[in-house]
Amino acid sequence: MSKAPARVLSIQSHVAFGYVGGKAAVFPLQCLGFDVDVVNTVNFSNHTGYGRFGGSRTTAEELSEMFRALEENGLLRPSRLLTGYIAGAAALSTVAGLASRLRQHDPELIYVLDPVLGDAGKLYVAPECIPIYQSMLPLATVITPNWFEVETLTRVELTDLTSLKRALRVLHEEYGVPNVIISSMILKHWLKGALPKHIAPTPSQDDPSDYLLCLCSTSNNTDNTTDLSVVHAYAVPCLPGYFSGVGDLFSAMVLAHLQPTISPSVLQQLGADQTPLSYAASMAVTKTHAILSLTHEYAQNLPEDERLPTDDEKDKLDPERKIRRMRGRELRLVQGQNIIRSADLTDCRRMERWSDFWSS
Amino acid sequence: MSKAPARVLSIQSHVAFGYVGGKAAVFPLQCLGFDVDVVNTVNFSNHTGYGRFGGSRTTAEELSEMFRALEENGLLRPSRLLTGYIAGAAALSTVAGLASRLRQHDPELIYVLDPVLGDAGKLYVAPECIPIYQSMLPLATVITPNWFEVETLTRVELTDLTSLKRALRVLHEEYGVPNVIISSMILKHWLKGALPKHIAPTPSQDDPSDYLLCLCSTSNNTDNTTDLSVVHAYAVPCLPGYFSGVGDLFSAMVLAHLQPTISPSVLQQLGADQTPLSYAASMAVTKTHAILSLTHEYAQNLPEDERLPTDDEKDKLDPERKIRRMRGRELRLVQGQNIIRSADLTDCRRMERWSDFWSS
Repeated sequence: MSKAPARVLSIQSHVAFGYVGGKAAVFPLQCLGFDVDVVNTVNFSNHTGYGRFGGSRTTAEELSEMFRALEENGLLRPSRLLTGYIAGAAALSTVAGLASRLRQHDPELIYVLDPVLGDAGKLYVAPECIPIYQSMLPLATVITPNWFEVETLTRVELTDLTSLKRALRVLHEEYGVPNVIISSMILKHWLKGALPKHIAPTPSQDDPSDYLLCLCSTSNNTDNTTDLSVVHAYAVPCLPGYFSGVGDLFSAMVLAHLQPTISPSVLQQLGADQTPLSYAASMAVTKTHAILSLTHEYAQNLPEDERLPTDDEKDKLDPERKIRRMRGRELRLVQGQNIIRSADLTDCRRMERWSDFWSS
Repeated sequence: MSKAPARVLSIQSHVAFGYVGGKAAVFPLQCLGFDVDVVNTVNFSNHTGYGRFGGSRTTAEELSEMFRALEENGLLRPSRLLTGYIAGAAALSTVAGLASRLRQHDPELIYVLDPVLGDAGKLYVAPECIPIYQSMLPLATVITPNWFEVETLTRVELTDLTSLKRALRVLHEEYGVPNVIISSMILKHWLKGALPKHIAPTPSQDDPSDYLLCLCSTSNNTDNTTDLSVVHAYAVPCLPGYFSGVGDLFSAMVLAHLQPTISPSVLQQLGADQTPLSYAASMAVTKTHAILSLTHEYAQNLPEDERLPTDDEKDKLDPERKIRRMRGRELRLVQGQNIIRSADLTDCRRMERWSDFWSS
């Protein structure tokens, strides 16, 4: 059977209630016309942020058996691969093996790897997962780490523009990753100071800390310069509080919108200086942020009891408090499906070229 | 938290590749605006019809633990419940317990129960599942058994109109099921002969065996007659060959379109004499058949090697033969999502009132 033009294999967590992992990625991909093969690395009642959850992790053996059956049946023929949270080093190794075989069979495979290791200084997988993820990096078309994951994978602490460049150099050169998107960098003083004017958040009464920077770097389109990569960035206005599944939705939208052979005329519609990666990142930022806004608006209109602000102290005393808040902040994906489906570029949050990134 | 207006809890099988069980039900329900809580009763690579598959069944203990976590977190608040294939008597008992608690808490719960027992004379669950399904029948709002499941649940062999009436009487009266849809009855001689003229397939060069009857019976809307129920039926043109997941999609579409308090003016748009059940069945038949047609058309256009007709002899000698056929006949749900979303009634396959069903 000829390879289907748009078939995604998604390997990540599953929750019965709410929208993280596969539940945040699969429906949006289906809405955009992709057949999605869905392998669940865990089957939980709800995301672990609720504090209480039930269910089971898929073992490495179960994953192997499933991959083998798919392979033997000739059903392992995705044109795109998406991997997210994978429970434990053994299961991760199994997925790494599969990704390697798929890459070997198909050099054109588009693989979006979200190296889910942790966030905000805290590892939430076993430390043995780190070298496995490092070994997977050369297989990826795009990686979508957060700040902490960049630091963990590259062993470079991001403290200034020089270290950021060093980390990107490690990813592009040492690990051979052609495309890197760091989706939500806190606008620390040094980063804010380094931003070109046209990327920095518009000065207003808003506090600049109310923005996160999305930065993408592609080593594929360096149009004869000596730069290592072409860098784009966009300052995304922050919404208050924590929403789960946002990174999973974002990575799925990157996967959906990345078209390595996109025509220059389509890129041009978004603006000058765009690359296939910045185009995909722009679409992903736009749609993810719109879904987040919809969710925020919904959460704002809940009864007061269900939208209590994050307060670790109070949450500890009353676990129900956190659960009520979590419940009201599940992504409004179903209600926002027209956002996901939209091909309209008029209100697109456009990633802007950071021309002197490497020379500055 | 107030109960969400349209939240479905779907408990059925999951396959990584292809569209049966939850994969045939969840995406269409999401397209129609439902938040769907998804509990996977198995996690397989592909449906078992391929002959070869890998993965695991969710144990009764795992299901219990998951339901408990959902319950404790206040996340068990569906307005609609959909259950399909459940692996084994122990797991089925666990689901039965949950359905019973949900029904107790919410008399308005819309529960569509597909009593998946077998087909065409063959049981494909353990015999101990039969009494458990029988005990679940009184909890259901609608059941969607096939011919064989009606016979198994009621212990009435369907050989003539009298036995069909007897079976419906058992379901409505003995088990207290208000709504029954038998989605695909073979038009045997006796059934064809009993059909009122306006329901019988239009005489043409078509062989009448190329139709299946969809019959629905509601004891809710008997407008002061002495009839036990209001019966509607529609002869659905058959498409050649076997497609998996059709029943799962059909049950999901019944769940989506059943509106117990639907306004008479909306019913009237579909035609006179409609009930909320016949309306839901009409929509489900229409959409399921349209997806099936799309799938058939796709399968027809595959290379010859991938659309070999069903032939058990040849399949036995060459298992790949069957696998290739199965692969090409997976439902085209993603490609047909506009069909699922459509609210257009103009080309609706309308269930027709069988007025003298009980008196004939």
